[in-house]
Amino acid sequence: MNAVPSDLVLKTQELSDSVTRPIPGSRKIHVEGSRPDLRVPMREVALADTPLVFGAEKNAPVTLYDTSGPYTDADYRVDLTRGLPALRAAWIAERGDVERLSQLSSEFGRKREHDPRLAAVRFSNLSKPLRAKAGRNVTQMHYARQGIVTPEMEYIAIRENQRIDAIREAHLAAQHPGESFGAALPGRITPEFVRDEVARGRAIIPNNINHPESEPMIIGRNFLTKINANIGNSAVTSSIAEEVEKMVWSIRWGGDTVMDLSTGKHIHETREWILRNSPVPIGTVPIYQALEKVDGRAEELTWEIFKDTLIEQAEQGVDYFTIHAGVRLAHIPLTAKRVTGIVSRGGSILAKWCLAHHKENFLYTHFEDICDIMKAYDVAFSLGDGLRPGSIADANDAAQFAELDTLGELTQIAWKHDVQTMIEGPGHVPMQLIRENMERQLRVCHEAPFYTLGPLTTDIAPGYDHITSAIGAAMIGWFGTAMLCYVTPKEHLGLPNKQDVRDGIIAYKIAAHAADLAKGHPGAQARDNALSKARFEFRWQDQFNLGLDPEKAQEFHDETLPKDAHKLAHFCSMCGPHFCSMKITQDVRDYAAEQGVAADAAALEHGMAQKAEEFRKAGSEIYREA
Amino acid sequence: MNAVPSDLVLKTQELSDSVTRPIPGSRKIHVEGSRPDLRVPMREVALADTPLVFGAEKNAPVTLYDTSGPYTDADYRVDLTRGLPALRAAWIAERGDVERLSQLSSEFGRKREHDPRLAAVRFSNLSKPLRAKAGRNVTQMHYARQGIVTPEMEYIAIRENQRIDAIREAHLAAQHPGESFGAALPGRITPEFVRDEVARGRAIIPNNINHPESEPMIIGRNFLTKINANIGNSAVTSSIAEEVEKMVWSIRWGGDTVMDLSTGKHIHETREWILRNSPVPIGTVPIYQALEKVDGRAEELTWEIFKDTLIEQAEQGVDYFTIHAGVRLAHIPLTAKRVTGIVSRGGSILAKWCLAHHKENFLYTHFEDICDIMKAYDVAFSLGDGLRPGSIADANDAAQFAELDTLGELTQIAWKHDVQTMIEGPGHVPMQLIRENMERQLRVCHEAPFYTLGPLTTDIAPGYDHITSAIGAAMIGWFGTAMLCYVTPKEHLGLPNKQDVRDGIIAYKIAAHAADLAKGHPGAQARDNALSKARFEFRWQDQFNLGLDPEKAQEFHDETLPKDAHKLAHFCSMCGPHFCSMKITQDVRDYAAEQGVAADAAALEHGMAQKAEEFRKAGSEIYREA
Repeated sequence: MNAVPSDLVLKTQELSDSVTRPIPGSRKIHVEGSRPDLRVPMREVALADTPLVFGAEKNAPVTLYDTSGPYTDADYRVDLTRGLPALRAAWIAERGDVERLSQLSSEFGRKREHDPRLAAVRFSNLSKPLRAKAGRNVTQMHYARQGIVTPEMEYIAIRENQRIDAIREAHLAAQHPGESFGAALPGRITPEFVRDEVARGRAIIPNNINHPESEPMIIGRNFLTKINANIGNSAVTSSIAEEVEKMVWSIRWGGDTVMDLSTGKHIHETREWILRNSPVPIGTVPIYQALEKVDGRAEELTWEIFKDTLIEQAEQGVDYFTIHAGVRLAHIPLTAKRVTGIVSRGGSILAKWCLAHHKENFLYTHFEDICDIMKAYDVAFSLGDGLRPGSIADANDAAQFAELDTLGELTQIAWKHDVQTMIEGPGHVPMQLIRENMERQLRVCHEAPFYTLGPLTTDIAPGYDHITSAIGAAMIGWFGTAMLCYVTPKEHLGLPNKQDVRDGIIAYKIAAHAADLAKGHPGAQARDNALSKARFEFRWQDQFNLGLDPEKAQEFHDETLPKDAHKLAHFCSMCGPHFCSMKITQDVRDYAAEQGVAADAAALEHGMAQKAEEFRKAGSEIYREA
Repeated sequence: MNAVPSDLVLKTQELSDSVTRPIPGSRKIHVEGSRPDLRVPMREVALADTPLVFGAEKNAPVTLYDTSGPYTDADYRVDLTRGLPALRAAWIAERGDVERLSQLSSEFGRKREHDPRLAAVRFSNLSKPLRAKAGRNVTQMHYARQGIVTPEMEYIAIRENQRIDAIREAHLAAQHPGESFGAALPGRITPEFVRDEVARGRAIIPNNINHPESEPMIIGRNFLTKINANIGNSAVTSSIAEEVEKMVWSIRWGGDTVMDLSTGKHIHETREWILRNSPVPIGTVPIYQALEKVDGRAEELTWEIFKDTLIEQAEQGVDYFTIHAGVRLAHIPLTAKRVTGIVSRGGSILAKWCLAHHKENFLYTHFEDICDIMKAYDVAFSLGDGLRPGSIADANDAAQFAELDTLGELTQIAWKHDVQTMIEGPGHVPMQLIRENMERQLRVCHEAPFYTLGPLTTDIAPGYDHITSAIGAAMIGWFGTAMLCYVTPKEHLGLPNKQDVRDGIIAYKIAAHAADLAKGHPGAQARDNALSKARFEFRWQDQFNLGLDPEKAQEFHDETLPKDAHKLAHFCSMCGPHFCSMKITQDVRDYAAEQGVAADAAALEHGMAQKAEEFRKAGSEIYREA
């Protein structure tokens, strides 16, 4: 191994201001559960009063789901070298089913641990990992099936509700009925509902016992739609500090989970830094690292190398693994006539291995061995779609659906072991073929949560695939996908930078929220209502602060109307002060009130009806239709 | 009137290089019709050969629909002061139903024409306008109903086909069946089909006889989905040159029509410059200018002022007018309890007028008078949705649908006069309520083309409403909307700059194309297939050039891999040279070929089946499922 490149070494304990500065107009609050160490963070946006001209009401604050962790807590001091507080440590310990190991179980992990050349890049405050005691199963699914409501489940119930009763009262006079396509959305999430959903496999709580820093969250179609952001260096560039900063940046904008897709020589150390500092679940694709261990020669992969990698990562605390066990030998020929063949990296690695040995995929043949590892740490499966379509032409083809059938079969094996499981899907799919993906997945995978990339609804917009795919993501989210894997504008072209990550995440927060609205998720419309009311009342700052990206909204506004006074003005730059439809609408209401017709629909309508009657009597015909 | 501000004066005959430089990899071609002056412009993208490693095929060029006009023609020299060639002048003249006026018919137009202070800002090479001879009707709908196939209709048929036979052969081995929701999409567009669709009102050809520079195009759900871009200065800023440049910029990226929503003191002159230089139809909202004429006091609007404005603009060559005749007095109270009231500028102006006078909307009562003007110049109606919902909360409410009913009633009146008509719709609508909009519109407006703003599928993303609305636009386009009115990232926040216009247009080109794919528009998938094949074969430059924004794609690629050699490399920056799924897929194919199993699905499958048989005989069970 070469010397450690100096740019890998973490030079600061802090993060840059751009990723930790307070989110404008928000403050961190905590809602306490049944025990004092169960404090669920939320983001509260305080709102200004309605201006006098619109009626001078008080506007209650809005509570938002908060993925950003302690980084946006004004009282928290970031120290990357210490990592985040282990908020779940006591909950894990008190279940009495885990033991602290005396040494790492993975050979690779031990080698890295003892390599003096790595001292400069290593996270140094590490304790030894936990593992389930012999014969025990530490998955949330296992607890759920025993009827146990864990603190994690209670935490999630509080988190998902987002103080819905207060919200309903203040901001939700009405919400459009949704079309949920069979989802079961309770008006209020209880800890028992969380347990039931996890027990029947319809939702997963990815939280490895070695990642006690994570704030519990849930992925399932009867909960808020989640999004995942990918980070990862590549052979070409990126330092450890940059990767940690990317993770914090991702959760600032709303990433619910982060997948670390790093490749290169120091992925083990990079991952450690990310995990110790991540309040959201971290997913990986272990085959990438396994491939590095055999210098990129897929045919040299073995079960032993892969197994050691799983254990290495499980003991670091990775919360879910993408496992491409559905790329079966017999499926591979189904891809030969595709326009874009196999586009999944993992899928192509396994395909190459299968053909080289002319053997069945070793992940498939060792699937139960993998389950044994997963349940010893509570790592969840993300069953990989190695044969997902890489172009519109290849959508919904025999290869894709053959693999999906296999994933359904594997789901039942995982569930036999009480291992939490979600299913990866889509890629490139035109709109008319999206719904079939969701319906088949629900059917053949027995309602295990679906986790889809996009889908991209056309191939013709390189540079804008966050948009081609946000369209598909919104739709498949509506139909029932539980988590949407983001796509950045750089997809197909290059590695995303910070701006691309932000653009990708916001596009996916839009898709996820549009899906929640369309499903009729209880309370989902409250934020829209509060923002639109602020917009109508020219409460500019409230409009910015309630948006998905307050900084961008304000920056755009200020480009044309930079002065502070303009943020109090009852007009905007689109029409100028004398030509504003919102102002005219208010004039209409005022005028109606002046005329003795209250600005109340029923009364106004009544007033109009009277006038109409007068007109009719006078022989006018203009009301003949109305 | 004040002196003309100096920054309004056009200082150059040319446009900046950024809006006229050649589109990379494309050249302008013309397909000739039945007469030599009928030459339909298209954009041809030449493709490189497939690299040897992938089979060394020739790749036929791809023909793309081209909205950019002569500006992207390498042989054309731009001179804004002369305007574009009047390509339709002979077609209009030879029908023998128009006469050239000796003076402008509008009083306002004459006043501007003779005001010496305007000399510096006026387009100076103007001839007097045309008008239908007494008793004649010069609309394309009128001709269509007489059974006449005009050169405009033939032009459109050629344009819509985009050399589909050649495309089918080269790039369309297969296309997924669409779900068209009742659209009638012929495999090939004939001039007669164009005529039939226009005759029955299912499509419109907006092309005023005073805008002979326009390249004919059609709006109807049985044709390619179109998009509109809005431009317009405001009270705050913008010069004439900037507005012309915005128009050229908009069509460069694919705007099919452009609406000029300018306000301010020189909108008459600005509009003239835009029209004389625009190869796409121009739409306006005449009530905006009428309101300026009464200094912003809506209650002072009169039918006479409005009528003079319609004639003024019709004689300049505006191709379609948004007319808010559906904002009836009786509908106004239905908006009083809305979260965001009336958000359409036109709608609120008319509402204010109605309440001030307590009279029916004068656009409604004078609707047949308006029809008389429209048919004398062939201006198409865009029946405005003055009561469109401005927030998710207000979607699909009584006010919106009451207006839609009125628009249906007005459509039949317009058709009685053979006046071409489309219907404006949406605004903010959550996904589950979009389809109802389309179905109602088809029903109550008798299949007149629908022209929708977005819809925005959530309110919570100020700064990203091109995305919130591209989701809704793609869906409603799929369901049958004929033209999608773009939304830029600045919506609700400020005036779009050039970058915002580009972002808005590309988002909408994505939505429109995704809709065409989903409907199963014949040939629509060819571009996707060609691009994806280029992507798979690492023909980077072809991938960029086939995209909606070749410049952006290349820029993104070059951020991480700047060297020219990298555009020939068989890898990209996402994975680096040793870890590329596309490369591995090719290895899979090669490996299979080496093993005597041809890289042809059937043969490969056969080879696999043989191997499987051998395994089975040897007692292996790994094929038991496959």
